[in-house]
Amino acid sequence: MKSVIFIIDGLGDRPNNEGNTPLKEANTPTMDRMAKESICGLMNAVDIGVRPGSDTAHLAILGYDPYENYTGRGPFEAAGVGIDVQPGDIAFRCNFATVDENFVVIDRRAGRIKNTAELEKVIDGIEVDGVKVIFKQSGGYRAALVLRGDKLSDKITEGDPHHEGVKVPEIKPLDDSEEARRTANIVNKIIKIAYERLNNHPINEERRKNGLPPANIILPRGVGKVPHILPFSEKYGLKGACIAGTGLIKGIAKMVKLDFIDVEGATGTPETNFMNKAKAIVEGLKTYDFILVNVKGADEASHDGNYELKKKVIEKVDGMLEYILNNIDKNEVYFVLTGDHSTPIEEKDHSADPIPIIIWGKSVRVDDVEKFDEFSTHKGGLCWIKGKYIMPTLLDLMGLLKKYGA
Amino acid sequence: MKSVIFIIDGLGDRPNNEGNTPLKEANTPTMDRMAKESICGLMNAVDIGVRPGSDTAHLAILGYDPYENYTGRGPFEAAGVGIDVQPGDIAFRCNFATVDENFVVIDRRAGRIKNTAELEKVIDGIEVDGVKVIFKQSGGYRAALVLRGDKLSDKITEGDPHHEGVKVPEIKPLDDSEEARRTANIVNKIIKIAYERLNNHPINEERRKNGLPPANIILPRGVGKVPHILPFSEKYGLKGACIAGTGLIKGIAKMVKLDFIDVEGATGTPETNFMNKAKAIVEGLKTYDFILVNVKGADEASHDGNYELKKKVIEKVDGMLEYILNNIDKNEVYFVLTGDHSTPIEEKDHSADPIPIIIWGKSVRVDDVEKFDEFSTHKGGLCWIKGKYIMPTLLDLMGLLKKYGA
Repeated sequence: MKSVIFIIDGLGDRPNNEGNTPLKEANTPTMDRMAKESICGLMNAVDIGVRPGSDTAHLAILGYDPYENYTGRGPFEAAGVGIDVQPGDIAFRCNFATVDENFVVIDRRAGRIKNTAELEKVIDGIEVDGVKVIFKQSGGYRAALVLRGDKLSDKITEGDPHHEGVKVPEIKPLDDSEEARRTANIVNKIIKIAYERLNNHPINEERRKNGLPPANIILPRGVGKVPHILPFSEKYGLKGACIAGTGLIKGIAKMVKLDFIDVEGATGTPETNFMNKAKAIVEGLKTYDFILVNVKGADEASHDGNYELKKKVIEKVDGMLEYILNNIDKNEVYFVLTGDHSTPIEEKDHSADPIPIIIWGKSVRVDDVEKFDEFSTHKGGLCWIKGKYIMPTLLDLMGLLKKYGA
Repeated sequence: MKSVIFIIDGLGDRPNNEGNTPLKEANTPTMDRMAKESICGLMNAVDIGVRPGSDTAHLAILGYDPYENYTGRGPFEAAGVGIDVQPGDIAFRCNFATVDENFVVIDRRAGRIKNTAELEKVIDGIEVDGVKVIFKQSGGYRAALVLRGDKLSDKITEGDPHHEGVKVPEIKPLDDSEEARRTANIVNKIIKIAYERLNNHPINEERRKNGLPPANIILPRGVGKVPHILPFSEKYGLKGACIAGTGLIKGIAKMVKLDFIDVEGATGTPETNFMNKAKAIVEGLKTYDFILVNVKGADEASHDGNYELKKKVIEKVDGMLEYILNNIDKNEVYFVLTGDHSTPIEEKDHSADPIPIIIWGKSVRVDDVEKFDEFSTHKGGLCWIKGKYIMPTLLDLMGLLKKYGA
């Protein structure tokens, strides 16, 4: 038996004045057919009353307690951009930004500079006080910074003022340890070196000539120490892979050592190539025991407050599901369809509202729920569950769960 | 956005031979209308299979883990009678009682003496072994005793034999600490001093003359150390108030530093002035972000095994709700209607049975539940939840819940 956890990012919503949600209104014959053939419920990835990020939610759904394993966004971002992070590394998210000669921030995104591959090189690979610096841009003004070496700490302040018109803050230790003082000192040096090497870089001279703000500094934030995480294959004895368009989910996959299946046209946006993803899932199931799928478009639409687009994305996902169901064997695959969190259109941000969840496959206790939406599935046999129960339930269905007792 | 948690004390029940409960049978058009317009469920304040007191239940509903914060009834009783308790204080509930010259208890309630304001004065404010003694009667034979000073412990036995015809027990340390020995010693001294000063007090001489038992001793019980509790406003960033008729709930409010809104005629009994309370809620919402309401009458009726009275109290509460709904704006207020615990008529005491809960307000996921009673609401979108999830769910609806992750 194989299994898929298919996550529609930001799926859930709150009813509008007519009592509708994009999911309730969308034309989703396959989702509804699946609900009819499934055991259904509501799910909170982390817990009831917790408003999770996509990162903490995915970790929880994969059975990794985020309160133990989520040490900040930096490590996951760094893994997501392809840095081979190692336990103990100190990792940050960074922006390329524009500062004046007094280090006052003029533009936090350096005019949303598009190509920073050349600029990356002046920082990546340097060594500061015996610590190796790994630096990688992620296709624009964003980047990840990793420090690798001895006696490092993540108990330090951040180097991003989050506002323009103020100076880049000096990074300070948050505790009395030598490690924290040393790490703060090193990051301050890196920021200074970045300015020295970037400010007059030919690319920035060219930008100035064209009236564009130079990308002449980096602003690190979201610091965290890369945790020791048990690889997915060791935890569950399953050969697993991930299909996703966004760096954050790629980072989660990398951190738990799921293989990553690259899909042409998978962008993490509403314009992603849905059908290529569907085909990759069907293909992937020939090789892997388990596939985690994330489709991000509905969440993007929610963050933009775009009700119609969210509905449209959900309908496209329904098309993916139709293709998948037509090309897999119900006797061989368990399929979990759910979201990671709700992103209500009216809030334009994540909420703690639970998300519908169904488990489709051989021998599940099919209930009488007939529709996959926020108002129907809690009447099914799964009632209201937490994300951490998904993996053991799948393992149990797959006949792989260890017995506790005699 | 503002919010109200409205608690009908002892609301839930078990069905009688006809399958009815006071709540199911009561004529409650407003509660049922609210259920129709709400997301509904069942709730256990502390946990499934826990038979809570009103104090532990209210703490849990406010998001304070009672296993951490509830250190005995004494501290909450003392706060409830108006003593400005401080973390570290040792607090007791007390009865004024009648003993003979050998300290044998003749009447545990001193003939249910009504006015003890003068007697209070002979104990309140004294100092024993450098410890300040605060003593306050609560309108009859009941009182609260507080010790304030260094090196005190709540690891001591109690001074109430709970029976008549036996001697007042000597208070003993429950562990080997100096603090426990010292505290036991001090309380024994206070009981002795109380006897010396009360036995021949003019009020007691007068009572003897009238054939009434003298209130010539105090019996401390329910010892606890006043805990450090994060004030409600700091925990949630909300300006909160409490409306309640009973000392125990006032004590909870005081302990978490909710303001207390005094309501004329609010007695904590079935004869309470329901409409004054309703008006106070509407008025209070003009000043406060959050109001905790407790209406006690249904619980009193349950403890007396009075089915019809419980039904009648619930119908009066329905009238309160009608007034409130007519005078608040659904776009501005989230309203939680629930109880703190069940008090089945047949048991005349609290039970672990869950209580109906509904959340009424803008953008909640309204389900198809049409009746507010013990048999309907679990079919709604809240399924079966714990009290600790109420506050984060409200904060989420109010847009005030912090995101965990990215």
